[in-house]
Amino acid sequence: MADILRVGVAGLGTVGASVVRLLQRQAQALSARTGREIVVTAVSARDPAKDRGVDLSGATFYEDPIALAASDTIDLFVELIGGAEGPARASVETALGKGRSVVTANKALLSAHGSALAELAESRHVALAFEASVAGGIPIVKTLREGLAGNSIERVYGILNGTCNYILSRMEAERLSFEDCLKEAQRLGYAEADPTFDIGGFDTAHKLSILASLAFGAKIAPEAVEIEGIERVTLADIDAAGELGFRIKLLGVAQRTAQGVEQRVHPTMVRKTTAIAQVMGVTNAVTIDADAVHELTLVGPGAGGDATASAVVADIADVARGVRSAPFGLPSASLRKLERAPAALHEGGYYIRLAVPDVPGAFAAIATRMAERKISLESIMQHGGRATRRIGDSPVGVILITHATTERLVREALDAIYADGTIAEPAQVIRIERE
Amino acid sequence: MADILRVGVAGLGTVGASVVRLLQRQAQALSARTGREIVVTAVSARDPAKDRGVDLSGATFYEDPIALAASDTIDLFVELIGGAEGPARASVETALGKGRSVVTANKALLSAHGSALAELAESRHVALAFEASVAGGIPIVKTLREGLAGNSIERVYGILNGTCNYILSRMEAERLSFEDCLKEAQRLGYAEADPTFDIGGFDTAHKLSILASLAFGAKIAPEAVEIEGIERVTLADIDAAGELGFRIKLLGVAQRTAQGVEQRVHPTMVRKTTAIAQVMGVTNAVTIDADAVHELTLVGPGAGGDATASAVVADIADVARGVRSAPFGLPSASLRKLERAPAALHEGGYYIRLAVPDVPGAFAAIATRMAERKISLESIMQHGGRATRRIGDSPVGVILITHATTERLVREALDAIYADGTIAEPAQVIRIERE
Repeated sequence: MADILRVGVAGLGTVGASVVRLLQRQAQALSARTGREIVVTAVSARDPAKDRGVDLSGATFYEDPIALAASDTIDLFVELIGGAEGPARASVETALGKGRSVVTANKALLSAHGSALAELAESRHVALAFEASVAGGIPIVKTLREGLAGNSIERVYGILNGTCNYILSRMEAERLSFEDCLKEAQRLGYAEADPTFDIGGFDTAHKLSILASLAFGAKIAPEAVEIEGIERVTLADIDAAGELGFRIKLLGVAQRTAQGVEQRVHPTMVRKTTAIAQVMGVTNAVTIDADAVHELTLVGPGAGGDATASAVVADIADVARGVRSAPFGLPSASLRKLERAPAALHEGGYYIRLAVPDVPGAFAAIATRMAERKISLESIMQHGGRATRRIGDSPVGVILITHATTERLVREALDAIYADGTIAEPAQVIRIERE
Repeated sequence: MADILRVGVAGLGTVGASVVRLLQRQAQALSARTGREIVVTAVSARDPAKDRGVDLSGATFYEDPIALAASDTIDLFVELIGGAEGPARASVETALGKGRSVVTANKALLSAHGSALAELAESRHVALAFEASVAGGIPIVKTLREGLAGNSIERVYGILNGTCNYILSRMEAERLSFEDCLKEAQRLGYAEADPTFDIGGFDTAHKLSILASLAFGAKIAPEAVEIEGIERVTLADIDAAGELGFRIKLLGVAQRTAQGVEQRVHPTMVRKTTAIAQVMGVTNAVTIDADAVHELTLVGPGAGGDATASAVVADIADVARGVRSAPFGLPSASLRKLERAPAALHEGGYYIRLAVPDVPGAFAAIATRMAERKISLESIMQHGGRATRRIGDSPVGVILITHATTERLVREALDAIYADGTIAEPAQVIRIERE
């Protein structure tokens, strides 16, 4: 058996404690699998005295994670502090700079500085592994980096935020408003007191930028992600989607097009028959379209201490076995600058909900604006209206489902409709993701 | 860049031709990913003259795959011949014996001789990789061997045979008989002229034995797999399942229990709400229950030239990168003898369809036999009966759904019912898989 792998864990929150526990519980199996004994020799956390339900008696305690990262008593630095800057970034840079492999679950750090950190890791011939940074326990990084090495990937998309999926699932199942479901998610600990990061789509965007880099061999480009959250999704939209055979999910989508790579996070209509539409609650799922494997979907827990620790420990085991892939599959020098596809050129179908006044000619005026831009309609549905209506009644919800068109034409048509003064309030527009 | 990796491919059927094509198409990306140029330098196949739509001009042609495996002109032997014995086995043993890594898609070979071949590979410090042998393009071997290295696995189960899933899906969707769907599957090329291997569950059993070894760190034990095919599933069962909220799938299930490891292949009732129930047509899916990750499901193509080649090429890339895991995760010497759980001790719910004569007391007699063995019923449904019936009419289908009980008690109750002479024909018994 080779030398012991001495592991330093920075950050002993839920995930950190689970990682230590898993390494201890699986010590024998991990040593058989990797040929090395894996031992947590040092830790750092804010409060050394706190009881975390794990045995840390053999580990040296560091107050400063950067001092831990710099210490000669570890071979591998596990960063579970979080945040794109501050001690997380500084400690990872310190460890890599010292020629130590790093395992991290930090999506914010990766999204902001992943390409530079990968370059640093490669220059020192050490590993930078981050399976836990995207979709928790789902081995999506390994699948993209190794499992699909023979594929050219066309699209990767998925449900990457459990909070949003929980809220949307619950709105549908219980017919509750967005606000009520958000409160419930906060009560259950699925959502933070300030939920903006989750429900605004920013968490999904971080993860998507990492997936896009792995899928397309490009440098991470978080600034190129179009982001729209789920705040504006109403029960009316969820009902209408259901009637039309769709379900609404917050998806992160990275897609290769003739115009470049699209990276977008937004509420999305997915056909109920697809694998991704079946994913309810806090569960995550990622689907990959690729030339050889066609379609592959992975479904599993996107968060939680043990599930995330499962991914961290798999990375640690790879490091122990001596695996040294380039962090993003291709060497940093081969990663291209991501060519951003303009959002206006996005092609696809659209769900458009309009509050149309119940006056003669209103709908004809709308249909004309669509037709002028050659937007053809797959279906038209009046929603929430009464059987008998009179002229002058309050607006009716009209739902249009378009055939494939472009974002630009849809926006132009809506601008023309607004200019006509036909409708009372801004339209709700939700993109339809093709299967 | 390190030396060229010289690959010899034995077997140029659909998968073999796809592998050569993929290696050529992705040559640049693969060399960037692995740091080595990967070149097919030699091939073997029955007919050297056949046009396979791939450029083999640079490759030496061998008539005998064993001669190819023994040749000093290759570094890696890719076996795509098929079959547990004969040239497939001899050539793989030859290549490993010569200290050459082997990549194979051969589930029959692995199931029969996997443990011995793994030992041989380890003794020569070379790789034996077989991602393509189970569930085609789904990276399930890598997931079990590496992605879940920190987990203790409790159960792995899935839809591992596209032919059976196609037939069951079509029976449900089109309300056709098993025989009609089988003919259609044969017409479309999804089923062989002799379909026994697929529909009898033997193909699933081969794959399951490989998954069980990876999941439980045990030597492959194909003889310990209980096998039941889909031939006896009727439209009446599919309809009744649907009404009760289930769908029928042919599953391979490997499960750790207090009595040992269960390995079983049989038609199974799965709740419609589960991820696995959504998988229709020729698609495969595998779900893993494990202590840390909880539940993980992978869905993708289980067959097809390109999808299978995707898995073969991923294995080739791992070999090129120098990855040398033990073939079954743990070193062969650490693989335990699989402790077989007796089938009679299987615990779970059961679907039981009985042809009950429409005479007074018939059902009471059946219910008594169940109650004597403390089998409690979750639901009772009369199926296919007419609204108005007379004493002496032909038997009615009665469906019982039991709460969790054991296989032994169910069989004892049925034997007692048969002995009573209460029912006209043998009962249809289908196990319910818990979520």
